[in-house]
Amino acid sequence: MFTISSRDKNQSSKPRVVIIGGGFGGLQLAKKIKNAPVDVLLLDKHNYHTFQPLLYQVAMGSLEADSVGFPIRRIFIKQNNFSFNMAEVQKINPESNTLTTNIGTIYYDYLIVATGAATNFFGNEQIAHFAMPMKNIPEALNLRSLVLQNLETALVTSDMKEKFALMTFVVVGGGPTGVELCGALAEMRHLILMKDYHGLSKYDMRVYLVEGRDRLLAAMSPQASAKAKEFLVKDDVIIYNSAHVESYDGYYLKIDNGKTIKTRNVIWAAGVKGEMPGGMPAEAIAKGNRLLVDEINRVKGYNSVFAIGDVAAMISDELPNGHPGVAPVAMQQGKLLAKNLVHLIKGEPTQPFKYFDKGSLATIGRNKAVADFGKLHFQGFFAWLIWGVVHIISLVGFANKGVVLLRWAMNYFTKNSDNRLIVRYYNTETRMAESESK
Amino acid sequence: MFTISSRDKNQSSKPRVVIIGGGFGGLQLAKKIKNAPVDVLLLDKHNYHTFQPLLYQVAMGSLEADSVGFPIRRIFIKQNNFSFNMAEVQKINPESNTLTTNIGTIYYDYLIVATGAATNFFGNEQIAHFAMPMKNIPEALNLRSLVLQNLETALVTSDMKEKFALMTFVVVGGGPTGVELCGALAEMRHLILMKDYHGLSKYDMRVYLVEGRDRLLAAMSPQASAKAKEFLVKDDVIIYNSAHVESYDGYYLKIDNGKTIKTRNVIWAAGVKGEMPGGMPAEAIAKGNRLLVDEINRVKGYNSVFAIGDVAAMISDELPNGHPGVAPVAMQQGKLLAKNLVHLIKGEPTQPFKYFDKGSLATIGRNKAVADFGKLHFQGFFAWLIWGVVHIISLVGFANKGVVLLRWAMNYFTKNSDNRLIVRYYNTETRMAESESK
Repeated sequence: MFTISSRDKNQSSKPRVVIIGGGFGGLQLAKKIKNAPVDVLLLDKHNYHTFQPLLYQVAMGSLEADSVGFPIRRIFIKQNNFSFNMAEVQKINPESNTLTTNIGTIYYDYLIVATGAATNFFGNEQIAHFAMPMKNIPEALNLRSLVLQNLETALVTSDMKEKFALMTFVVVGGGPTGVELCGALAEMRHLILMKDYHGLSKYDMRVYLVEGRDRLLAAMSPQASAKAKEFLVKDDVIIYNSAHVESYDGYYLKIDNGKTIKTRNVIWAAGVKGEMPGGMPAEAIAKGNRLLVDEINRVKGYNSVFAIGDVAAMISDELPNGHPGVAPVAMQQGKLLAKNLVHLIKGEPTQPFKYFDKGSLATIGRNKAVADFGKLHFQGFFAWLIWGVVHIISLVGFANKGVVLLRWAMNYFTKNSDNRLIVRYYNTETRMAESESK
Repeated sequence: MFTISSRDKNQSSKPRVVIIGGGFGGLQLAKKIKNAPVDVLLLDKHNYHTFQPLLYQVAMGSLEADSVGFPIRRIFIKQNNFSFNMAEVQKINPESNTLTTNIGTIYYDYLIVATGAATNFFGNEQIAHFAMPMKNIPEALNLRSLVLQNLETALVTSDMKEKFALMTFVVVGGGPTGVELCGALAEMRHLILMKDYHGLSKYDMRVYLVEGRDRLLAAMSPQASAKAKEFLVKDDVIIYNSAHVESYDGYYLKIDNGKTIKTRNVIWAAGVKGEMPGGMPAEAIAKGNRLLVDEINRVKGYNSVFAIGDVAAMISDELPNGHPGVAPVAMQQGKLLAKNLVHLIKGEPTQPFKYFDKGSLATIGRNKAVADFGKLHFQGFFAWLIWGVVHIISLVGFANKGVVLLRWAMNYFTKNSDNRLIVRYYNTETRMAESESK
């Protein structure tokens, strides 16, 4: 079995910083700590970083999977104090400063939990079985396959009820992901369906959005919410606000507003919860399965365990729910923690975290986005342009930026896309077998 | 159930031409027949065309899957006499002019079998189970995952014998695919391994090539064979010529030259056979499971069944084995058959097929390729440049050309690549489950 202790591996006397998770927060921390007198070990169950904000475009067939992923090893080629292992952490053992993982026991001096968020089905196993989550690349590819396979099947189905169910798409959750997915589905309906699928009519394809709160994009301004709704309604998306899904058996989706939708396509973007290995005591865990942290992201009750990003709950009087689960929070926390770890090691005073909110953006489709920058709210083409620029700049990898830019330009001008490939044939059983084998 | 007969579907009196397979041959035929008085129905089990010559780069993590695929529907958006269905053809019923498929029974007036070639394990089920084929995108992604997962595992394995087995790569088959795979593996060993996988040494990684004949690239000139071997040997690939694999149990690979290699990575590029649905009688089937065709690609004994490309055996005194299984043969046959079908419908004389061999190219790695153009044989940088240009030009899709060019330029200058993502976690059981569910 593989074991790493801070002593026996490299006879280094430098403290070992172990980061679980190569998302936005974990990467920032690992990068910013490059000149510190520490050894960094990053663990992730994937061998790549995922740029989650564009996953929905992979799922909708507008981008290739590889353009939103980047190999973690490749990012750190020149960083000498860094190493990476692909590993699934099963348990944190804070009493012995070790992790139990599928590749062995790993010792840490400082542990940073940066495992992000998982899809929250709120305990409903039937929904978890039949609805499609979209939190990583394999899930996005599964979703892409489901949508395209169902359109193929719709073409050859003579049972009209079944045909409509195959052509009915329900997105549950009206946050940025849900809104962006609906926008992309509406665009597929308007621009692509009848060009590609001779024999299917856009009037038979329906897109629904079900949101529990009374407005979409609840984390953004009321102006943004209203405009997003207006854009979607104009594109024939049927929106149910203040509505919750009661059940979904793979065909009938029941909503607590009395409606039942017959659909073969339910995409679940309705909730997240912190994703973390076992081993942390209940008193360190806050609402939403997140780790309670102090103002330097140190987990309550521990000196050497930290949490950043979506899995961290930095709760205060001003922020009773902690920070929003967005990339900038994770990145800023990672960046600051890199500094604070050095301060801690040197016995210097630390600096408390303060979130600098640069603003929020969400896109609804071609030329359509909503933007909030402080008191400035605007919507439409200019917001859409900023959305594009911000995402291209934030993507990891020079070639990825180029590939995405090229695909976007082509998709924009041809009003079509080249990535609608079913690269993994989807069925529920294969998905289940795979997620268990992972 | 879905049924198409030439009468009930569109009340068209035009003959229905059904093409099975959207490879090089099928696509050419469908395109060139666009102005003919026929209805064209193309069937493929994938919803995209695969550019097989670059599959090995997907497997080796130099290109994204989507860049070597292109949605078939998208190609034919503007062709009015064309339709496509994703379908698996189970049986040809030549006596009733119908196909039995997973989407129902389909009637044809003219049938063109363009199903290409499948990996030939020569009946050895153990090898089929443990060795990796690479004939389509899912298989290329499986291979990519296997290679990268095994390197990850090698890093955390303390059993030295297992570690070497994980870092030993055996390619079986010294045709273009085998040579190109070996070149890419050798390059990964030289350029990438020690940059990315701190802790692994290139001196522990071994690449073998096992070829049954006495030279590599047997379809090319002796000069090309010799130079390809020289390039590979210089890159430390161990080549066994006139050697055949006897067995492989997932760990021990036994070769009939007395050698046994301990390896976790066996890539099978040793043989192909025609891939076709059942239903054709034995007398129409030639060596290599191909359909015997006359000089206009009409299957022996039938008036309305044709075969083109790798699945066709156009055997004559000059060509006792038929044409080589390469894309240009399939494309030229598809193109000519489009004309001949019109001639047949109009009762005009047909034109016999004659293969125009434009030349052959194979690449071994950066700056290294071999080329045969008639009596002209050359190798090295210039051949490599031509190889690149020819492949970019031949790729389907403008954006795909751009993406591949961009990735190649980046890979060339950085001596690395960004596509080494394990997008589907590979294990033998999942693969088996999936190939059965397909």
